[in-house]
Amino acid sequence: MNIGPYTFEEFKQKVREFHGYPAPGVLLGGYMVERARSLLPPGTLFEAVVETRKCLPDAVQLLTPLSVGNNWMKIVDLGRWALTLYDKHTGKGYRVFMDPVKLGAWPELKSWMLKEKAKKDQDSDRLVDEIRLAGAAVCSVQCVTVSDGIRSKPHMGPVALCPLCSEPYPVKHGTICRGCQGEAPYELDAPGVTAAQRPALHAVTLPRL
Amino acid sequence: MNIGPYTFEEFKQKVREFHGYPAPGVLLGGYMVERARSLLPPGTLFEAVVETRKCLPDAVQLLTPLSVGNNWMKIVDLGRWALTLYDKHTGKGYRVFMDPVKLGAWPELKSWMLKEKAKKDQDSDRLVDEIRLAGAAVCSVQCVTVSDGIRSKPHMGPVALCPLCSEPYPVKHGTICRGCQGEAPYELDAPGVTAAQRPALHAVTLPRL
Repeated sequence: MNIGPYTFEEFKQKVREFHGYPAPGVLLGGYMVERARSLLPPGTLFEAVVETRKCLPDAVQLLTPLSVGNNWMKIVDLGRWALTLYDKHTGKGYRVFMDPVKLGAWPELKSWMLKEKAKKDQDSDRLVDEIRLAGAAVCSVQCVTVSDGIRSKPHMGPVALCPLCSEPYPVKHGTICRGCQGEAPYELDAPGVTAAQRPALHAVTLPRL
Repeated sequence: MNIGPYTFEEFKQKVREFHGYPAPGVLLGGYMVERARSLLPPGTLFEAVVETRKCLPDAVQLLTPLSVGNNWMKIVDLGRWALTLYDKHTGKGYRVFMDPVKLGAWPELKSWMLKEKAKKDQDSDRLVDEIRLAGAAVCSVQCVTVSDGIRSKPHMGPVALCPLCSEPYPVKHGTICRGCQGEAPYELDAPGVTAAQRPALHAVTLPRL
């Protein structure tokens, strides 16, 4: 069964290139994206909400102009295997979600989705084959209206230079940037070096740059 | 100046296809990704931390196998124009960040980055041209060690069917799924319909499906 403009094998190759490997979740997600899109009137300017961070966002990014970087795709991690494509102007759209009632005919897909087996016991070939045969038939659809809150564009507001690190940051984050507030998930390998000393840091630690 | 395997014009076209339009932030981000990658020893298995949701994640997704859906790219919204590529095994890597000191020679890029002008007053052609000419020269580099916390793979844990919506969800989220806890950013257009009634919902509202 085709996925948008692609055959299953072509899409599998696209997934391999973008996602690093042909993950079952992105393959299944491809069918879900196309199911939701098929329900929108042609020409609708749409955006997306994806309810998990795992795999599904990449199906949206591969098949539509929506991405995490342009913010036309929003990820709200509800832990559910579902995505919604909706009219950008009205918020009206279609939510396509994994419906366990429909998994009965697809044992490998069912055990993968419900995590019934350890990964090493999965039959990957059979799983991919079931996804290819089932497509969006394991999903159901709901008509939804997406809330104004998530549809409105977040405004960055004014930008200033952080008095500690001297990098630009949104003033609304506080008097210093979030990185300097302790939220950075890394440590500098020359800690204690301030912005003013940065050129010296480069000279010392990165003479080649 | 080339961006990885692409000429600037080729990359601009790639950005247009993936991101919807050739956003300055993704173009600049392309140079930053390649700068960070050039510092890693060849063959390093690397992952990424991006410090803003705006544009920059798409440069990483376009030029590497890292994506939001495979979780090899993490977005930590510190509001700073910076990305780190690091060795997956050791956490050691290079943080490439916008250095305001280096913006002096690029007036349009400076006013865009610091939001000194309203969007309507920007000279987009000049901005893109400055990005093409400046590349990663407006950035500086820090050696960093990314924390174990963000490098460890999040485990979903056991999956169950939510007793309210009947969809699969991670048990660690609670006795009902986050969607049913009120976190869903949409309303069903036939509210009050429970999981058990779902087939009826479809029959009523979506006879075509």
